[in-house]
Amino acid sequence: MNRFEKGLDVFSEYMDDGWEKPKNGQMEDPLDSVAPDFRRWIIEAYGEIYGRPHLDKKERALIVIASLVTQGAHTQLATHIKRGLNAGLTKEQLAECIIQCLPYNGFPRVQQALVILKQVIEE
Amino acid sequence: MNRFEKGLDVFSEYMDDGWEKPKNGQMEDPLDSVAPDFRRWIIEAYGEIYGRPHLDKKERALIVIASLVTQGAHTQLATHIKRGLNAGLTKEQLAECIIQCLPYNGFPRVQQALVILKQVIEE
Amino acid sequence: MNRFEKGLDVFSEYMDDGWEKPKNGQMEDPLDSVAPDFRRWIIEAYGEIYGRPHLDKKERALIVIASLVTQGAHTQLATHIKRGLNAGLTKEQLAECIIQCLPYNGFPRVQQALVILKQVIEE
Amino acid sequence: MNRFEKGLDVFSEYMDDGWEKPKNGQMEDPLDSVAPDFRRWIIEAYGEIYGRPHLDKKERALIVIASLVTQGAHTQLATHIKRGLNAGLTKEQLAECIIQCLPYNGFPRVQQALVILKQVIEE
Amino acid sequence: MNRFEKGLDVFSEYMDDGWEKPKNGQMEDPLDSVAPDFRRWIIEAYGEIYGRPHLDKKERALIVIASLVTQGAHTQLATHIKRGLNAGLTKEQLAECIIQCLPYNGFPRVQQALVILKQVIEE
Amino acid sequence: MNRFEKGLDVFSEYMDDGWEKPKNGQMEDPLDSVAPDFRRWIIEAYGEIYGRPHLDKKERALIVIASLVTQGAHTQLATHIKRGLNAGLTKEQLAECIIQCLPYNGFPRVQQALVILKQVIEE
Repeated sequence: MNRFEKGLDVFSEYMDDGWEKPKNGQMEDPLDSVAPDFRRWIIEAYGEIYGRPHLDKKERALIVIASLVTQGAHTQLATHIKRGLNAGLTKEQLAECIIQCLPYNGFPRVQQALVILKQVIEE
Repeated sequence: MNRFEKGLDVFSEYMDDGWEKPKNGQMEDPLDSVAPDFRRWIIEAYGEIYGRPHLDKKERALIVIASLVTQGAHTQLATHIKRGLNAGLTKEQLAECIIQCLPYNGFPRVQQALVILKQVIEE
Repeated sequence: MNRFEKGLDVFSEYMDDGWEKPKNGQMEDPLDSVAPDFRRWIIEAYGEIYGRPHLDKKERALIVIASLVTQGAHTQLATHIKRGLNAGLTKEQLAECIIQCLPYNGFPRVQQALVILKQVIEE
Repeated sequence: MNRFEKGLDVFSEYMDDGWEKPKNGQMEDPLDSVAPDFRRWIIEAYGEIYGRPHLDKKERALIVIASLVTQGAHTQLATHIKRGLNAGLTKEQLAECIIQCLPYNGFPRVQQALVILKQVIEE
Repeated sequence: MNRFEKGLDVFSEYMDDGWEKPKNGQMEDPLDSVAPDFRRWIIEAYGEIYGRPHLDKKERALIVIASLVTQGAHTQLATHIKRGLNAGLTKEQLAECIIQCLPYNGFPRVQQALVILKQVIEE
Repeated sequence: MNRFEKGLDVFSEYMDDGWEKPKNGQMEDPLDSVAPDFRRWIIEAYGEIYGRPHLDKKERALIVIASLVTQGAHTQLATHIKRGLNAGLTKEQLAECIIQCLPYNGFPRVQQALVILKQVIEE
C-alpha cells in the first residue's frame, strides 16, 4: 500500500458514510487544472500525520479546528467542522472548541468561526 | 464564590502540585505595576471558559496549544505546554499536537514550537 | 448593577440614537443557537475594558479600528467603523486612522479597510 | 519627471497592452472619495521599489505574490496574478510560485491562492 | 523643502528633547550597509502620513501602537512606546491602549506588549 | 531512489560546499528527541516541492524568503538567507527581495528581516 492509499484509508474516517474511496487510486479535484498534485498531497498528509498514534481522531480534529480558527481560514474551517462531525464530535464540542480559542484570539476570530459553525450546522 | 475564586479553582487544575491557591483571594503578577487587572482577567477566563462542560481539561489544553502554535506566541506556548503536562497530557501527546499543526501551518511555526517543547521537557 | 448591566451602559455610547437598551437585561444575538454566552461576553467587555479611565471613547474606537485593520477582520471592521461614527469620530478621522496604518501594514490591509470604510459611509 | 510619473512608467510594465498612461498625470481610483492620495502612493511605490536594480520584473512579481499568498490577501492576489502574467510569467510559473509556499504556510493559504489563480486564468 | 526634510520636521515631534535634526539632511542608520534607502523611506513616511490633518500626534501614536500590538512586532513596539511618551502620552494611556486591544487580540499579544511597556518604563 | 534520497539531492543544492550528504540515508537533527520524523519531512519537501520544474532554484529561494519575511519567521529566515546565498543569489538580490516586501507588509516586518540579513552577511 503506497502513501496515497494509506492516506485514503485515514481520510475516509473523516468523511461521511456516503463517501466512496476512489477505486482507481485517483481522486479528482477542482484544482487539478492548475495544480494536479495538490489533492494527492492532502491525502498523503492524512496518512503521514493524522494516521499517527498518541491522539485519537476527535482530538486531531479539535487541534485542526483550533488552528483554522486562529488563522481565520474560513473555507477550510467549514470543511473541517464537517469532518469533525464525521469523526464523532458533537456540535456542542465544536462550539466549545471555538469558544476555548476566545481568550487567546479575541472576539473577531471567534465570532467569524461561530458564524461558520452555525452555517454548517443549519445546512 | 465570585468570578476570581471560581477561576482560581479551575486554574489550579493546570498548575503543578506545588502551586498554592492564594489565601487572600489576590495573586501577585510581574505586570501589576503597569496593568494591575491583567492577572485577574486571566484567572477569571479560567472560570468562564476553561470551566465549561463538553470538553475535558486535556482537550482544552490541546486546543490552546494548537492556537498558540498557529500564532507563534512562544512565551505563552512554553507556559501552556507546562499546564498541559499538569493537566495530564504526555510529552508524546504534546509533540503530536504540534505535529498535527504541520499541514495547516507549514514548517516554520511547527519547528519553532518543537524547539520550545524540547526546551520545556529538558528543563 | 452587575457586569452585564454596566457593560450595556458603556456599550450604548457606541450605538446610534435609535438603539434601545434591552429592558429585561437580556440581548438576543444571531449566535445564541450555537454560543448563548457569546453576546454577554462582548457586552461585559465593554464594561470591563471600554469603561476604564485615561482614554476617551473616540480614542478607544481608533485603537480598536487600528487593530481590526491590522488583523484584516472585515466584518468586525465595518461594525466598529459604525460604532466610531456613533462615538463622535468624523469620516475624515476614520480615513486617517486607516491611512496611519499604511506604513506599518502595507497596501493590502489598508486597501481592504478603505473599501469597507467607503461601503459603510455610502450606506 | 516627478515620483508619480516615474512610478507610472514602471507601473505600465505590469499592465496589459490596452492600458493607457493617464495624460494629465492623474489617475482616478474608486477610493478617491475616502482617500484621494491612496492611488498616488501605490504608483509612487512602483517607481521607488519595483524600479530598483538587481531583480527583474518577473522576480519582483513572484516575491509579491508569495507575500500575498502568505498573508491571505485575496483581492490583491488576483490583481497581482494578472500583473505577473503581464510581466511575462506563465500560468505554470504562477502555480509553482504558490506551490512553493506550501511547506512554509500549509494547505489553507495555498488552497485559497490556487482557487484564485484558477479563477483569474479562467476569466 | 523636500520630502525628507518635511519628514524630519514631523519625525522630530516624536523624538526626545536631546534628539538633533541631522544638519546635512542625511541620517545614519545601522541598516545602511544592506539597505541605504531604508531610513529615508521611514523619515519620508513621517512627512507623508504622520504629517496629515484630522488626527493629532497622540492619536496617531495610539493607532500605531495598537497596530504593532496586534502584529506582535516587539522591537518596533518598544520604539513606538518611547515615541508615544515623547508625543505626550502618559504611561497610563499607553497601558490603556494595550489593554483596549485585549478583547480583539486575546491574552498572548497583550501580555507580550505589557511586558515591553514595563521594560520601556523601567529603563 | 526513495523520497528521502530524492529530497537529499535537491536539498544539497541549497547547502554550502562543505555539506556532505549522509551516507546511511539518515540525517540527525536536534529535534529528533521530540519529533524524529520532522527532519525527514523537511528533506522530502525538497524533493516534492523544490525539485519541480518551471522555476529555478534562485526563484524558489526568493519566494520562500518573501514568505518568511511576511510571516515574521526569524530563525527560518536566517537559515533560508544562507540557502539563498548557496543557491547563487547575491546579497544585493537578497536585500532587494526583502525591500520588495515593503509596500505589501510595512516597515516592521521589513526592518526585522533586514536586521537578520545584516547579521547573516556579517557572520
